[in-house]
Amino acid sequence: MEIVRSNFQSQLPSILEDVRRCDFISIDGEFTGISKADFKARPFDTVPERYTKLRQGNMDYLMCQVGLCMFFQQPDGDYLAKPYKFYVTPQTFGHTDHGKSFEFTCQASSMNFLASHGFDFNKVFCQGISYLRPSAESKIRDTIMEKEEKRSTVTETPIAVKGEDKKFINGVMKKVEEYFSSTTEDDVQPLDLEPCSPFRRKITYQYVRFKYPVEAYMESVGEGREKHIQVSKINTETRKAKEQAVINKKLEDLQVAVGFSHVIKEISSKGKMLVGHNMLLDLMYFVSQFMAELPETYEEFKAMVTELFPRLLDTKVISSTYLFKEDIPHTSLDELIKALTSSLYQQINIVIPEGFPDYEAPDCKMEFHDAGYDAYTTGKCFAIMAHTIGLKATPPVQNLASNSKLLTPFINKIYLNRIQDIPYMNLAGPEVLPDREHLYYLSFPNTWTRQDINQVFFPSLIYVTWIDNSSAMVSLQERSENAQVKKLLSASTLGCVVVPYAEWHKQQLKSQSLSPKYEQASKQAVKRKHSGTESSTPGESDVKLVKVTKESETAAAQTSLKADKLFQESNW
Amino acid sequence: MEIVRSNFQSQLPSILEDVRRCDFISIDGEFTGISKADFKARPFDTVPERYTKLRQGNMDYLMCQVGLCMFFQQPDGDYLAKPYKFYVTPQTFGHTDHGKSFEFTCQASSMNFLASHGFDFNKVFCQGISYLRPSAESKIRDTIMEKEEKRSTVTETPIAVKGEDKKFINGVMKKVEEYFSSTTEDDVQPLDLEPCSPFRRKITYQYVRFKYPVEAYMESVGEGREKHIQVSKINTETRKAKEQAVINKKLEDLQVAVGFSHVIKEISSKGKMLVGHNMLLDLMYFVSQFMAELPETYEEFKAMVTELFPRLLDTKVISSTYLFKEDIPHTSLDELIKALTSSLYQQINIVIPEGFPDYEAPDCKMEFHDAGYDAYTTGKCFAIMAHTIGLKATPPVQNLASNSKLLTPFINKIYLNRIQDIPYMNLAGPEVLPDREHLYYLSFPNTWTRQDINQVFFPSLIYVTWIDNSSAMVSLQERSENAQVKKLLSASTLGCVVVPYAEWHKQQLKSQSLSPKYEQASKQAVKRKHSGTESSTPGESDVKLVKVTKESETAAAQTSLKADKLFQESNW
Repeated sequence: MEIVRSNFQSQLPSILEDVRRCDFISIDGEFTGISKADFKARPFDTVPERYTKLRQGNMDYLMCQVGLCMFFQQPDGDYLAKPYKFYVTPQTFGHTDHGKSFEFTCQASSMNFLASHGFDFNKVFCQGISYLRPSAESKIRDTIMEKEEKRSTVTETPIAVKGEDKKFINGVMKKVEEYFSSTTEDDVQPLDLEPCSPFRRKITYQYVRFKYPVEAYMESVGEGREKHIQVSKINTETRKAKEQAVINKKLEDLQVAVGFSHVIKEISSKGKMLVGHNMLLDLMYFVSQFMAELPETYEEFKAMVTELFPRLLDTKVISSTYLFKEDIPHTSLDELIKALTSSLYQQINIVIPEGFPDYEAPDCKMEFHDAGYDAYTTGKCFAIMAHTIGLKATPPVQNLASNSKLLTPFINKIYLNRIQDIPYMNLAGPEVLPDREHLYYLSFPNTWTRQDINQVFFPSLIYVTWIDNSSAMVSLQERSENAQVKKLLSASTLGCVVVPYAEWHKQQLKSQSLSPKYEQASKQAVKRKHSGTESSTPGESDVKLVKVTKESETAAAQTSLKADKLFQESNW
Repeated sequence: MEIVRSNFQSQLPSILEDVRRCDFISIDGEFTGISKADFKARPFDTVPERYTKLRQGNMDYLMCQVGLCMFFQQPDGDYLAKPYKFYVTPQTFGHTDHGKSFEFTCQASSMNFLASHGFDFNKVFCQGISYLRPSAESKIRDTIMEKEEKRSTVTETPIAVKGEDKKFINGVMKKVEEYFSSTTEDDVQPLDLEPCSPFRRKITYQYVRFKYPVEAYMESVGEGREKHIQVSKINTETRKAKEQAVINKKLEDLQVAVGFSHVIKEISSKGKMLVGHNMLLDLMYFVSQFMAELPETYEEFKAMVTELFPRLLDTKVISSTYLFKEDIPHTSLDELIKALTSSLYQQINIVIPEGFPDYEAPDCKMEFHDAGYDAYTTGKCFAIMAHTIGLKATPPVQNLASNSKLLTPFINKIYLNRIQDIPYMNLAGPEVLPDREHLYYLSFPNTWTRQDINQVFFPSLIYVTWIDNSSAMVSLQERSENAQVKKLLSASTLGCVVVPYAEWHKQQLKSQSLSPKYEQASKQAVKRKHSGTESSTPGESDVKLVKVTKESETAAAQTSLKADKLFQESNW
């Protein structure tokens, strides 16, 4: 269901109800940009390094379309799915500055990409739903209350004016005095002053207020050149009622401005399970756009995310384990759904109720890169994989529940692009520490080519990742040759500087001053507010996974570590 | 006429022809943002300061809609007007990085504003015309030529591979060898290899090329998972023809990518007169988006702009002179056209040819903030004001030409927002240096209010511009009180620091290191390539303006200075 500004308020109650009642929510986002020109995803990044790079360079864009598909598991194992697609855009609210959310960046390539997929930009920029982080919301609320409080209690001395302005204000005051002396409190016919410049409205306000601090009530009415001050003579009771009405209207408008953040806040406070495909950026934007500024260090981010979204599942991580890898060599979303809906896997039945787009209809013309369709497809991939995992268990479990303990090894493990030796970002515990003994950092003259680098390691075969035109990271194709290469490197005159990865990395941490905060933060325990929601389904706790027996029998805290064996390490 | 990607190429020749033949071009732009949160236009900015502020903070947005209205003066004094409206958007070109033009910023308030005026964002982001600065264009052209040159002359040694990759490449080479031994040069049926990964396509290319450097011609064909290499056995002649065809296609694509910059380049090279309304930002974007990076200092900017666009007229400047000021108190575009089309002014006849939107039709529903309509309206305002200026001259001139010497005092003077004592940015000569003897910079405890500041200057009346919560610029309402105030300030204990404007400004320049470059640059003469196009209309050189006699009788170089008298100084 497409949700834009005009139908958001009316649909919001049922959306929130669906959030509360569903078993899991699959998600997807479309963006006005993906990565800065200077963003370089390196195969030898560590997890905190990757986080820092993304946070610093890639968070200025707008997640302009958000897909949320609520899945409801039926007693017979079927699913009911409600795919929602939200168009969102930042909107100004009054004159209150709510910081960076006022601005976002667009990247030509991303905008061209969305355009080529038939994206409707008018639905974002003309019809997009507003959003506000809770901190901005409460700041604005405070400002509203303070301003109204001040308006009703403080009376400033009017500023001094002269010349034409003085003539003007004298005229105004004469009119107002006449009005006040000619009317009784029970006969409140307001006085409309002449339209004038903002400065003159300001001094009018000050002078009238100074003379009639209690009994004069003023409002700006009319638009453009018709804008003017309306003065009413009122009693204290009416005054209070009017002031309260102004506050109520502003708070109501604020709730409209909070918009899509209402939905994300509900997902967070109910600790709902979120399922994404290669979901790191989606997740970072869920936090940064709708909830809170991203923290500086990765460990703080870990703590924040597990607090905000305690149960995350990444279908790209699940499909990369040995359970699926053999039959599914390519794990892009389109390849994944193709493989999972082939005859190799037992299919599940998903019903999409009326009022929602029927993505299962034979004549459905949906394309990928529509957040609603991608969210639905991601959820369907997860449902089929969960079903498969249940069937592979000993004894097999029919219709595996999304909160089954069998899925614990996958919880809070997020896919990392282009890091072959770290299978996932582990929000559930310590990160995988890959063996990088066979990696060497090289610094050389900028005239060097690949051939020169080959020469250094001859006769060993190598992979080369260029950092710039005078440095590169080199990895041996055969780890077994490492000892021999190490000797060679120390012995010969190479014409270049060779530094083992571990040493180079230590230097990097030092120079980026990334290290102290990271190491400090990693010592802190990760608090989890919602961990209680991770309870297992009754009757399933004894079930063991084929091949994964050891992983699932341990306590939750240890599971994540041992489950590393689910993931084949890749070489590079 | 609305110009988007799909009709740009076909319309380009007639657009360029209109540029060359017209008498002047009125312009307007719509933007995805206007000013950064930290941008503060101060009434006490100097011209170089204002330029620096705008350049640093306000140039990351996109001028997404450009209005150009070509005006052709007919022998009878009527005009023919061709209003064009272009939607433009940056587009990626190949993988060549053409810098910042890849990204732009959007500001919520501006996007909301455009949306509220019915702006069609899809025409920008799905149908927008590309553009490229000449420097990016030539960089890309060089890259294309170098790459093709390298492709046809350099043969790299293939990288070493092992395992599955080795098996793969051996299979490929066997097939290719069979192909080469079985076919003759006159019988060129290409060989389609199997689709494979980008890495395998890369090594295939290297190995085949290494073995058959001259006779093998390779192309990537197919899309997505069907992408594969096609090998052809060819002779040297065919090879050269094919390589040339590839280059030609790329250069053709490059010309399409240059897109809207073709139009701006033509305007510049023909030295056409541009007429804008409050045109500083439009002008800065004309330079920055389509032509060249904005220079660091204002004096360099001055030199660059007069080189690129030698004749500029700002209708807000013209309407602010005493010639119009009395009858036109408000000079926003909507107020200006309303006043100029009233019975106070002699009207002119503008014909809009078929194929262009008839903005003069009684049922025309155009709104302001459409770049085409605003450009047309600006041009019309100018035409009426030029006509009026002609009639006010002694002896009166009917149908004043847009290149008349009577307009020289207005040439290259650009309106400055919110600086009341500098009537314009003077691209034609030295800037107006306002008397700021009655201005004082104050630094005080952050608990101070306006009342405390008043107290310092009591009994003089003042204007206050807050800089932050502990500093402000104060201006005396009566300059005549300055000597008396100066004495007062030096004598008493004030509880705050008071610094005369001149001294404060000197400090500012020092701390921003703005001064040296500015002063250095201002000593350089401003080169003008196109000054020859500013010749006067025959028979008009003896005509004098009522009241402006002195200004127009002097040489062009001096005119701009003396013409300052056209502008009433404002107090603040």
